[in-house]
Amino acid sequence: MVMKKDIDELPKNTANYTALTPLWFLERAAKVHPNRKSLIHGSCHYTWHQTYQRCCRFASALSNYSIGLGNTVAVIAPNVPALYEAHFGVPMAGSVLNTVNIRLNASTVAFLIDHCTASVVIVDQEFFLLAEEALKICSKKTNTFKPPILIVIGDENCDPNAHRYALSKGAINYEDFLQSGDPEYDWKPPEDEWQSIALGYTSGTTSSPKGVVLHHRGAYLMSLSAALMWGMNEGAVFLWTLPMFHCNGWCYIWTLAALFGTSICLRQVSAKAVYEAIDKYKVTHFCAAPVVLNSIMNAPAEDTILPLPHIVHVNTGGAPPPPSLLSGMSQLGFRITHQYGLSETFGPSVYCAWKPEWDSLPPESKARLHARQGVRYIGLEHLEVVNTKTMQPVPSDGKTIGEIVMRGNVVMKGYLKNPKANEETFANGWFHSGDLAVKHEDGYIEIKDRSKDIIISGGENISSVEIESTLYSHHAILEASVVARPDEKWGESPCAFVTLKPRVDSSNEKCLVEDILSFCKAKMSSYMVPKSVVFGPLPKTATGKIQKNLLRAKAKEMGSAKMSKL
Amino acid sequence: MVMKKDIDELPKNTANYTALTPLWFLERAAKVHPNRKSLIHGSCHYTWHQTYQRCCRFASALSNYSIGLGNTVAVIAPNVPALYEAHFGVPMAGSVLNTVNIRLNASTVAFLIDHCTASVVIVDQEFFLLAEEALKICSKKTNTFKPPILIVIGDENCDPNAHRYALSKGAINYEDFLQSGDPEYDWKPPEDEWQSIALGYTSGTTSSPKGVVLHHRGAYLMSLSAALMWGMNEGAVFLWTLPMFHCNGWCYIWTLAALFGTSICLRQVSAKAVYEAIDKYKVTHFCAAPVVLNSIMNAPAEDTILPLPHIVHVNTGGAPPPPSLLSGMSQLGFRITHQYGLSETFGPSVYCAWKPEWDSLPPESKARLHARQGVRYIGLEHLEVVNTKTMQPVPSDGKTIGEIVMRGNVVMKGYLKNPKANEETFANGWFHSGDLAVKHEDGYIEIKDRSKDIIISGGENISSVEIESTLYSHHAILEASVVARPDEKWGESPCAFVTLKPRVDSSNEKCLVEDILSFCKAKMSSYMVPKSVVFGPLPKTATGKIQKNLLRAKAKEMGSAKMSKL
Repeated sequence: MVMKKDIDELPKNTANYTALTPLWFLERAAKVHPNRKSLIHGSCHYTWHQTYQRCCRFASALSNYSIGLGNTVAVIAPNVPALYEAHFGVPMAGSVLNTVNIRLNASTVAFLIDHCTASVVIVDQEFFLLAEEALKICSKKTNTFKPPILIVIGDENCDPNAHRYALSKGAINYEDFLQSGDPEYDWKPPEDEWQSIALGYTSGTTSSPKGVVLHHRGAYLMSLSAALMWGMNEGAVFLWTLPMFHCNGWCYIWTLAALFGTSICLRQVSAKAVYEAIDKYKVTHFCAAPVVLNSIMNAPAEDTILPLPHIVHVNTGGAPPPPSLLSGMSQLGFRITHQYGLSETFGPSVYCAWKPEWDSLPPESKARLHARQGVRYIGLEHLEVVNTKTMQPVPSDGKTIGEIVMRGNVVMKGYLKNPKANEETFANGWFHSGDLAVKHEDGYIEIKDRSKDIIISGGENISSVEIESTLYSHHAILEASVVARPDEKWGESPCAFVTLKPRVDSSNEKCLVEDILSFCKAKMSSYMVPKSVVFGPLPKTATGKIQKNLLRAKAKEMGSAKMSKL
Repeated sequence: MVMKKDIDELPKNTANYTALTPLWFLERAAKVHPNRKSLIHGSCHYTWHQTYQRCCRFASALSNYSIGLGNTVAVIAPNVPALYEAHFGVPMAGSVLNTVNIRLNASTVAFLIDHCTASVVIVDQEFFLLAEEALKICSKKTNTFKPPILIVIGDENCDPNAHRYALSKGAINYEDFLQSGDPEYDWKPPEDEWQSIALGYTSGTTSSPKGVVLHHRGAYLMSLSAALMWGMNEGAVFLWTLPMFHCNGWCYIWTLAALFGTSICLRQVSAKAVYEAIDKYKVTHFCAAPVVLNSIMNAPAEDTILPLPHIVHVNTGGAPPPPSLLSGMSQLGFRITHQYGLSETFGPSVYCAWKPEWDSLPPESKARLHARQGVRYIGLEHLEVVNTKTMQPVPSDGKTIGEIVMRGNVVMKGYLKNPKANEETFANGWFHSGDLAVKHEDGYIEIKDRSKDIIISGGENISSVEIESTLYSHHAILEASVVARPDEKWGESPCAFVTLKPRVDSSNEKCLVEDILSFCKAKMSSYMVPKSVVFGPLPKTATGKIQKNLLRAKAKEMGSAKMSKL
């Protein structure tokens, strides 16, 4: 046992230990590949040297305003360079970055700014009115509210009046703010890697938004995990279809600095813009929710550049992609990886690891395997599906539903100022995802529903996801979402909200509903067949997630289902 | 400043924090790809499920012998599966793995076993006599010496008598040892990621060997860094030409589990065996010292399979590869990455990151750029070349020589039971490499020599590496090593030891020496031209490094150089 003592006599020192933080990635990119492209936004191109200098200026300018450790900086912006830069500039000053969803209304933004006591608000000119209104609400709410420093990001591609207006209201021009900082600013890594790096609010469909606090350690580890999961190598060209404000762009902002990759910014996502960027910049990777992929797959021929000139890797999640989408995209030349995660796990942390032996299976089997969420990323040390009462793992039978729970270094610190939520979410030493899944024989997990999305009909648990998956394979359906509708007889029954494909004849709605229902009857147990089918566009969040809470409210308004048709 | 307080109120818990350790990689590989090949050794093939079970048995069997936290397990073996398994089995039991260089003599092995107080010695049957003799020396040295548990690894491809002999001497058969363990052993990650995982002794050419102690945290981070540096993706097929006992195979043992890659073991390395493995197993990656690459490049045609059927990535280091080797290998279809590191930095931690813009340069310029050691791995946070007196960085002029110093998470804990060496090596808060280098304008470093290899002639510092590099470009020279020889007039002068290529006519030695010297004179300042040239084979370490200390002794024996020829 001499060894133990000897080894304890070798403590950490400044030469062999430093905090893990993704900030190192940027400094290294600037040193190794100073002239390689870091960011492209329209006609604006930056190199890693420039990005590093801009981020140093950012941190320096913040510290000139005495913003540092303990302060929060909120950013309200679409996928523009300033939001990318904030992911380095803010933590380089020791502060915490709060990325705000640009689709939120003013009162929610006000709640966020107040809740995280933002010392600085940086807002894109397109969203200045939103910020202005939110700040008004904040000042009205409490007398003690201290207005944050307000900075506006201009964009030469946008309305110059909006920018001028913001400046006239006293906002600091973002570029002037940067210019006031020192490009050689001597930033320091955090003293402790457990220090917070970012704060993001969950959409809060059922309660007040919860502030997910992420740490430097996890951001470092997830950045590398995400690259390894995807086989993403040096020099990747990444298209920003995924909002950077959505869980820090699943940490890919930091990954790209680690890989000396290039970010292609997109203020607004459209199928046409995606195809254009693939063509022009040789995009190798992008992330998108299934609904975005749907629009890419169903884009009019003149907007596409099919067949693709090179392989494009697509990471999709947020909702299980229906089999028809998976096979369709792969036929077009996209390589889809299906993954799953939450803001609380630094973005996706589970993925459907593909096995070469699956390549030779028939398309339906492939799609079925591919639609599963899968196995853990390398940064997540434990992934389990448990019986919520006993906390014991469910059997690997592909049938027994339990809750997905996780443990590992890519789990958040907790929710900000919310001890009750923290107690619940970390109960029994696990992070509780709130998602329900089964575990297959090969250990891959498959989500059946969010806890709150499950439909309980006559005592039976019905997975809304399973019904949706069937609906997506119907030839006329572009998008589908199924929620519980109050039911006189069964308590709840499935209600399907459906968007039809552009060229579908919907003149005889009744006939179409019957066709869809008989299609469902042929494919599922009768108690699972929707009792109601509603046509129309589906409400979505900023990240393209269908807002089931709104549909649920709509289903409730419709009153109890009495018959098997509308 | 509310934020700081709130964030401090979110402490680590079992759901969001666990020790970083490469042990997770193995458990994950077995879960995700249980049937994929993990190791191939002759006719012996293992899957990840099997490797995981064997490692669990290994740890369980150790703990049955009460071997756990605080114990050291020494392994003396070439690249066989047992040595791979020890890298997981030993730390899964909480113990520290000491990999022993198989080329050491018995008295050095005895020093190691005694110094690290090994509780268990696992030895390959081919090296049993070595272990036996070493243990005898240990028992004679001290009365208190407690003989370790002795385990022998059998190999059906080797002499059965050697195995039988070991068993007759009371050694436990490795396979029986494994069988005694539980394949479902409930191993635990270390409580603290600073816990030691491995111990390796430096070759100790000038003093007693020093025990480099590595930690779980660094092993985890280097495993991932090494994959990212190389663009090594899932399913890589790795040929073990590099000894696993050499700094834990530069952490690639653990990397391969992280990537679900396949290890091809080689008991003995030869050019023929390398080409055969590339052909048979579709090897994608291997590591080798320049001297090994030399033999691959100069192999007789009948031993090769050129042109290569697919790209093979080669990671080389240990000594700067001469330009002629770099260009030669690349013409054969090998993609060479040049890197540099030390046992103290978990193996290579610096690499010559290639820039696409260099592709179009003439071959000599490419080779010149490629021969530089380069920039830091992602896991190493600081790399600098400093003036050893002032500790200030040298200018980036490609001329000023300083010492390479490092800081970061892939630096060792320290040397075992050697406070004096630790004080020196960690002086001024840096890890001191003992290597001398310059820093180029683009920030890439280039080694000029080991501190002790520099030749001081008439007050001028002469880089032995520079002279060697020139010698390697001479048509008749296979290998070259230059050391200081005492010199009457200049104090020291360069003495070249040279091995000729197989088909070179060496009948007129004098004429050849003159040809080499005039070749040197045309390419370097006259004070750098070797004063002596000696032909013959070069002494090498187990890892293929040329043993300059032996050559230096030989040069000393030759007496003072008096003339400009032998």
